[in-house]
Amino acid sequence: MKTLLLNQREVKQLLNMPDTIVAVEEAYKDFNRKMAIQPPIVSIEVPEYNGEMDLKMGYSKSTEIIAVKTAVGYWDNPERYHLPTLLATITLYDGKNGYPVCMMDGSLITGYRTGAAGGVSAKVLARKNSKTVGVIGAGNQARMQVIALKEILPLEMVKVWSPVRKQQLKYKQEIESMLGIQVLLCDEPKAAVEGTDVIVTATPGKNPIVQDEWVSPGTHIIAIGADMEGKQELDPKIFSRAKIVVDNIQQCVLRGETQNPIKEGIITEKDIHAEIGEILLGTKVGRENNEEITIFDSTGMSIQDNMTACRIFKNAVQLGIGQKIELI
Amino acid sequence: MKTLLLNQREVKQLLNMPDTIVAVEEAYKDFNRKMAIQPPIVSIEVPEYNGEMDLKMGYSKSTEIIAVKTAVGYWDNPERYHLPTLLATITLYDGKNGYPVCMMDGSLITGYRTGAAGGVSAKVLARKNSKTVGVIGAGNQARMQVIALKEILPLEMVKVWSPVRKQQLKYKQEIESMLGIQVLLCDEPKAAVEGTDVIVTATPGKNPIVQDEWVSPGTHIIAIGADMEGKQELDPKIFSRAKIVVDNIQQCVLRGETQNPIKEGIITEKDIHAEIGEILLGTKVGRENNEEITIFDSTGMSIQDNMTACRIFKNAVQLGIGQKIELI
Repeated sequence: MKTLLLNQREVKQLLNMPDTIVAVEEAYKDFNRKMAIQPPIVSIEVPEYNGEMDLKMGYSKSTEIIAVKTAVGYWDNPERYHLPTLLATITLYDGKNGYPVCMMDGSLITGYRTGAAGGVSAKVLARKNSKTVGVIGAGNQARMQVIALKEILPLEMVKVWSPVRKQQLKYKQEIESMLGIQVLLCDEPKAAVEGTDVIVTATPGKNPIVQDEWVSPGTHIIAIGADMEGKQELDPKIFSRAKIVVDNIQQCVLRGETQNPIKEGIITEKDIHAEIGEILLGTKVGRENNEEITIFDSTGMSIQDNMTACRIFKNAVQLGIGQKIELI
Repeated sequence: MKTLLLNQREVKQLLNMPDTIVAVEEAYKDFNRKMAIQPPIVSIEVPEYNGEMDLKMGYSKSTEIIAVKTAVGYWDNPERYHLPTLLATITLYDGKNGYPVCMMDGSLITGYRTGAAGGVSAKVLARKNSKTVGVIGAGNQARMQVIALKEILPLEMVKVWSPVRKQQLKYKQEIESMLGIQVLLCDEPKAAVEGTDVIVTATPGKNPIVQDEWVSPGTHIIAIGADMEGKQELDPKIFSRAKIVVDNIQQCVLRGETQNPIKEGIITEKDIHAEIGEILLGTKVGRENNEEITIFDSTGMSIQDNMTACRIFKNAVQLGIGQKIELI
């Protein structure tokens, strides 16, 4: 038996946002159907080289594939080694016999599946005629979220503010040429989010940026940045007047944006309306009217990697892409 | 940058017991020098296919390599898929930048490094002139242990008893032709172990096989089989008159043979003489006279895989073996 090897160039060729949105939607449904087995994440820190490795492992009973993703972050890589800061590999094992059927670069997949998460949330939580997005941050996720939203909503304008101001111009150029949407650079976060239909927060911040009074009725907020204890981008008061939806309650109350209003006693876990998979499965409702403020808090799950990588593997086999190697 | 791929055939070519003994000795020393970072093992069970996957991850500060081993056990594989029951892969990441420098088949390495563990223990715990080994079990580890002991001791005879009687004849033929040592097949476990210099237990058993009264002064016992809660091969009374050495105290009191005398109140954790790395480093003594009974309880550690795989990787680079692939 052989193992299919897909390098970064091949994964890039096979990866696209519409497919990833379908994969992530399936992942969320599977999670709430109890079809996903996801052991705890394990990590190693290598402080002497300013690096760390996270290992995410998950089994999907619907694809019958075990996926193992190792993702490293080494912050001195560009300067010291001319390597990217983030590197990842994903290996897929046949759940029926444990054979490693595919090994692929995983560096791009996390970005796509996290972007797709916001897109999936917009499907059930944003107003259908949402035309403007306010984006906080101008890094990779600030791009991915807008790319995904463009697949779901009739977007016409992006307003962006980043704490790293010098990133903004490049962001404008890239998004405008890639998506053909106008991008407005803002001097203040308030200007970026006020009056927009959708707000995306995608920074590594640890203090509230988006204030409660800037958020109009009907807004959908996609909270992406917070994925660890101590991270924060939203004024926790927003939660008291919003319909709160998360990817995974257990994770979000500890590591997502939701940790903050809970810590401050503004909400309790019971105020969380749903996990998004419940809405996608139809067991809970999504947006009910044009006045609701909705928040989607995403912390990321192994099953998203699993489903996205499975789809890439399947496409690669169909198209004859990749190299067959003998490993075992 | 490229990743070196080593398939099972190439790993087999590069793997040998003397090198593995050196690697495992270094691993044990590093563990007790606090140079090994080993997060908890994570597992997934796939009961619908009678399978499971274990993931062991470890960083060695001396090799500056992170090793990730995924090992699966699928007990219906031979019958259903013409695949081995046990399959494993090991990926080595450069600890300085997280780049995956080498991917190799790991199916053979676990067997070798576990065998080497017994050999290393014999170096400091068996009598130097040990000539006979009594082996309980006739599977892969029953072979590996004897192969390793042959490197350390002037072995002349193996006496074997297996709960799976039909394995014994093949065991005799293989060991005799491979090592040139006489193998005596025994009808009872008592006959296999009584009067031998070294006893090896290597079964998946859950009840005591080797009885206290069969064990003579001066014997070294290598307890390999017990690596999970509930496993047992030794009469726990033996522990009350033995010098107890383990690979990892924390693991052995929960999952090793040592769990049993502790559960029965025959010993407490304080009665454990040493972790083997402490003896190898010279901070604790090994065997002190010809009358002592010594027990080495081995449960296995990620750092053993790390060191063994690093050595294989190094040899492969020196000898120009393996295929360079583009992954990232």
